[in-house]
Amino acid sequence: NGDATASRKSLSGVELVSVLNDKTSQKAIFVHGRIASAKSEQTADDAVILLEKKPFNQSQLQEILSSQTKLTVDLENDIYSTYTAYPPPLVSDIKATIICPAAEKHIRKYMKQKLTVVRETKEDYLNITMPFLEKQIASNVFNLQWVFNILEHKAETERVLFEDDNKNTGFMLMPDMKWDRSDVKSLYVMALPHKRGLKSIRDLTAEHIPLLENIQTKGLEVIEKLFKIPANELRVYFHYQPSYYHLHVHINHIELDLPGTEALRAHLLSDVIENLKLTGDYYQNKTFTFVLQENNFLFTEFAKANKALN
Amino acid sequence: NGDATASRKSLSGVELVSVLNDKTSQKAIFVHGRIASAKSEQTADDAVILLEKKPFNQSQLQEILSSQTKLTVDLENDIYSTYTAYPPPLVSDIKATIICPAAEKHIRKYMKQKLTVVRETKEDYLNITMPFLEKQIASNVFNLQWVFNILEHKAETERVLFEDDNKNTGFMLMPDMKWDRSDVKSLYVMALPHKRGLKSIRDLTAEHIPLLENIQTKGLEVIEKLFKIPANELRVYFHYQPSYYHLHVHINHIELDLPGTEALRAHLLSDVIENLKLTGDYYQNKTFTFVLQENNFLFTEFAKANKALN
Repeated sequence: NGDATASRKSLSGVELVSVLNDKTSQKAIFVHGRIASAKSEQTADDAVILLEKKPFNQSQLQEILSSQTKLTVDLENDIYSTYTAYPPPLVSDIKATIICPAAEKHIRKYMKQKLTVVRETKEDYLNITMPFLEKQIASNVFNLQWVFNILEHKAETERVLFEDDNKNTGFMLMPDMKWDRSDVKSLYVMALPHKRGLKSIRDLTAEHIPLLENIQTKGLEVIEKLFKIPANELRVYFHYQPSYYHLHVHINHIELDLPGTEALRAHLLSDVIENLKLTGDYYQNKTFTFVLQENNFLFTEFAKANKALN
Repeated sequence: NGDATASRKSLSGVELVSVLNDKTSQKAIFVHGRIASAKSEQTADDAVILLEKKPFNQSQLQEILSSQTKLTVDLENDIYSTYTAYPPPLVSDIKATIICPAAEKHIRKYMKQKLTVVRETKEDYLNITMPFLEKQIASNVFNLQWVFNILEHKAETERVLFEDDNKNTGFMLMPDMKWDRSDVKSLYVMALPHKRGLKSIRDLTAEHIPLLENIQTKGLEVIEKLFKIPANELRVYFHYQPSYYHLHVHINHIELDLPGTEALRAHLLSDVIENLKLTGDYYQNKTFTFVLQENNFLFTEFAKANKALN
């Protein structure tokens, strides 16, 4: 315990303070703990401990399907039976991440945030969201320089998958940071339009249909050519609210389970094109329904305007 | 092994045939195996074995955070370190389900199905989907009697949460089968309209706005009153394609992680109402984009018409 340079060999000496977030569907749990300090045995440091069960390792299946895995019966009925099974320790490994000493911001980062459904009418956008975004952009809080660096070939040039350099209808295809490119079934590509000033789908009108159709046609053709994944295995959508305010399209494999694909955040490119053809100001007039975490800055703006609570 | 009446005590004698589906994000794996037959030691029965890691049990956290959990270091850098951790066997329990002897249909049920994105235009609906649905309904393959039994108070009467009995705008609120009602954070309620003949949102026109607004207003009021969950913590949506063809609304807590909430299947009630106000035939004209498994009957119809592949 006292030796700062030695690696930790077990979770001994970790005191449980509280559970920050219990992510049951991912079989993960985030914990606030205290660990005896390396500097002094009298004191303890705050720590964030992230525990996550691992997926089954196919190469260990034969070891699990053996006499080493003990069963207790929960239910037996005809051909169906359910058990609680205790596999041998070596195949029950979990991933543990320790942040220690952890500052207040680390603890807050992993704390479960209350989620709220927000309805943003056209008026809410004009009175709350847009002024907030413009203030953030003007004061450089929402820094888009990294996007402009990509579009101007000043950064990540070796990662570019495709470029159509037309100023109005052109775009670049880049692998998303979350995709390591080793497995096409996890394909995740972003399309970044060259056109500036389109913050999100709120700004799209009928005049942008050629840009959107170009991404849908040429973008998906390129992906099929490069990765042999046809359009009918791809999910192609925008986020609203997006995580950054230069318009971009998410393209990923339908086998991928991703949090941002739900109807409260994802808007299919094909639906967006069809709605703009129906009426060019569809997205200016639309009431958007989306989820915000209560620590989100935009949530604070809606709360100030008494708009977040119904 | 030879005793048919004794409960299984371990997974010994289970031979691995193949992995049917490796659901890594859920930390589950479905396996086709063979188990020595209870009738004769010379033969073996086909079996489907479903293994799923359990969420962390908060009451066992102190046991995990102890010297019993051994660590091997993956990375140590400043305040961040990651480990592979081996907790004691008793807290590494997994859920095992065995179906044995398993027929071909059981094996096929748990086999990973290829997914395909299908685009259903107005014409595709009229020429492919609608004739297929009507044939299925006429021949009673899509049996809606269980829904009518609920609406006519012939079944599940003790489960009814609320009823508005107006024939045109009325509906019933029922807890979904997946919700055990023990935890309001897992709230999952269905709204079933009394009106017959609305198969899905494809059939909705401006004349149904009063029904939809009634569900949105009165339905959510009732839920807040019964379960203290306000509307801004609820996800309210239709499925397209739905799993049964009597119109119904899914209402669940936004904290719930559910597969059917993604943009390729879920359509928010608030968006549906807004689109019908914009143009009454919005859903007759819309091109729907959704995902079908290749063993889905409707997929077969689209494939026959050469429509599923692009």
